[in-house]
Amino acid sequence: MQQQIASLWEQVHKQRPLVHHITNFVVMNDTANVTLQLGALPVMAHAPEEVADMTDLASVLLLNIGTLTPAWIESMLRAGRRANERGIPVVLDPVGAGATPLRTENALRLLDELDIAVVRGNLGELSVLAGLGGEVRGVESVGGGDARAVAEALARQQGTVAAVTGKRDIISDGARTLAVDNGHHWLSTITGTGCMATTAIAAFVAVGDDALISAAAGLACFGLAAERAAEAARGPGTFKPALLDALYHLTAEKIQTGVAVERL
Amino acid sequence: MQQQIASLWEQVHKQRPLVHHITNFVVMNDTANVTLQLGALPVMAHAPEEVADMTDLASVLLLNIGTLTPAWIESMLRAGRRANERGIPVVLDPVGAGATPLRTENALRLLDELDIAVVRGNLGELSVLAGLGGEVRGVESVGGGDARAVAEALARQQGTVAAVTGKRDIISDGARTLAVDNGHHWLSTITGTGCMATTAIAAFVAVGDDALISAAAGLACFGLAAERAAEAARGPGTFKPALLDALYHLTAEKIQTGVAVERL
Amino acid sequence: MQQQIASLWEQVHKQRPLVHHITNFVVMNDTANVTLQLGALPVMAHAPEEVADMTDLASVLLLNIGTLTPAWIESMLRAGRRANERGIPVVLDPVGAGATPLRTENALRLLDELDIAVVRGNLGELSVLAGLGGEVRGVESVGGGDARAVAEALARQQGTVAAVTGKRDIISDGARTLAVDNGHHWLSTITGTGCMATTAIAAFVAVGDDALISAAAGLACFGLAAERAAEAARGPGTFKPALLDALYHLTAEKIQTGVAVERL
Repeated sequence: MQQQIASLWEQVHKQRPLVHHITNFVVMNDTANVTLQLGALPVMAHAPEEVADMTDLASVLLLNIGTLTPAWIESMLRAGRRANERGIPVVLDPVGAGATPLRTENALRLLDELDIAVVRGNLGELSVLAGLGGEVRGVESVGGGDARAVAEALARQQGTVAAVTGKRDIISDGARTLAVDNGHHWLSTITGTGCMATTAIAAFVAVGDDALISAAAGLACFGLAAERAAEAARGPGTFKPALLDALYHLTAEKIQTGVAVERL
Repeated sequence: MQQQIASLWEQVHKQRPLVHHITNFVVMNDTANVTLQLGALPVMAHAPEEVADMTDLASVLLLNIGTLTPAWIESMLRAGRRANERGIPVVLDPVGAGATPLRTENALRLLDELDIAVVRGNLGELSVLAGLGGEVRGVESVGGGDARAVAEALARQQGTVAAVTGKRDIISDGARTLAVDNGHHWLSTITGTGCMATTAIAAFVAVGDDALISAAAGLACFGLAAERAAEAARGPGTFKPALLDALYHLTAEKIQTGVAVERL
Repeated sequence: MQQQIASLWEQVHKQRPLVHHITNFVVMNDTANVTLQLGALPVMAHAPEEVADMTDLASVLLLNIGTLTPAWIESMLRAGRRANERGIPVVLDPVGAGATPLRTENALRLLDELDIAVVRGNLGELSVLAGLGGEVRGVESVGGGDARAVAEALARQQGTVAAVTGKRDIISDGARTLAVDNGHHWLSTITGTGCMATTAIAAFVAVGDDALISAAAGLACFGLAAERAAEAARGPGTFKPALLDALYHLTAEKIQTGVAVERL
């Protein structure tokens, strides 16, 4: 699978897919940069008057519900319907699902009303969405089910690929399940790294035809860059610029020898 | 008092208080990171439909009026009332009070309608709010009264702790007044460091029972980290990641020997 | 012209002009920092209730349509009219013009209804606005006319200074045309550097009396800082903090020997 992931990474650089983000205010800058460092193109646009037009230009749509309001959900639905009509994939990051009814209900609404290719969240968020318990404090997972059981259940319930990220990432389409062991502890010490991981998934989903493999590829490459970044950083603050450097300096060779993906 | 501050810092790490921010777009990412580096948990949420629910999960509520609109003020009032009902502290950063009527009036409205544990601002902002002159150009203090007189007056008028930050920080509850001499010149050369200082206050207020001491503790630890960061930076740009590193690498020992707090 | 540019840079530090930004969510933090590193003062304010009041305090108004909505355009028009009444310059960054009708139409509306001192964009954006073709994918230029022809045509059509930025920046007021050759490849690998360049223009336009020269001065100083930053960076991630460092460490002497501006 290493070679397949390296090949997908090369496709991102070759095709430069446009990733249309409707995302939260906290991470907009970082996720735009992650998109660029991976070789893709970012755009952030949320006005109801233009979201469908922007989705028309895009190769993938990323919906992220951090700092959401009902008006933004309407824009997400509008863009999502257009993406579904056009047949481009939609990736969902249900930030804070489980913390408040607004977030839980709207994450489920997006999953119900749209065809979502991949949903990525932490264990608490996806446990809640799968109806398997789960506890979220703010945007932090503080409890949930077994990651594999959660990913598989949510994937089957929603007909999607579900990615539970954590020390070990678990990705499932309900039939097949993968684990990714790349990453670094410092990813959990700065804000927005979950959102950045979702952006990495989106860039790879845009160029692949198997969302399960693309999701694992995005997470593995992101985690691999984090490992390299940690060597160049002195703490979480210098880790973020180093992470962007490392994403930019990924090569097919580094990916083939560095990604740690396992079929479960 | 050094030992007391070190002990509060340890409590932040132990309790991991959730800091609910309703804050401005410019600093959201930075203040989320400061929260994490200090050992607490951040969440940013402003939708009127969820702010009270999010405040229910939080240990402290931080209101910051940079980039405000009337709709955001309504959300701040809603969250603030819930925080007051629950008895968790509310910390206010009146960014740009004095620059426009919208900011001045709404900062005073928040102080009047809510029970505010700590208000932190620059000399111009807090001078305006205390009715002691003060001039603010954009978000920059360009004139004000004597810092101690301003802090004491505002604290008495509003029944709060007032923290005037600058080269020397002055914190008063109207009866007792403290000064903090930690910090570094580069804090004044990048955007958002005042907002970050308010976040540090919030994290400490969440775990302490004396808002005056907690406010001084937050400012002293933040300033101490800035001193350490300056040694690792080559200018204001590299200072910010270094500041987050230094906050993360604080220890009880560094705090006991490094904080410079004086009772006036 | 080198001496003239160095002199303008000194004036920015001396006068500390307030740059009122109504800008997009992605770059707010970075453009505030660029403003500070250049010696000016930033403020971000978009509420219709305060934009005119904030413009009253400002020395220049910067309008940037990334992440726009119709409500923000109304605020831009209100602030722009006040700026025009007061006779302070207005600088426009038409981010993504050409990508969607909302962006194209509103960029043209701002150009038509306001007196714009300088408009800066990439080749695709300004080609679209000049009616000379142009293709924009998200916020990326993927096609356009000849940069000089575009800058000159748009400047004449709109009675403004038009700056087309790219590997070589072309700036024209319709009668005179300049080229700036400062810059570095990494500027194209992170998000928001176009917006930062517009901020640099705004700071210089605030203190100069010839918008053409000021625009070239802002771009030359920004590009010069990028050249220096690249030497201190290990990739695009560490390039951004290094860029802010380099802007902060500019001196009149470095500018006189380093800027590369040519009259065409």
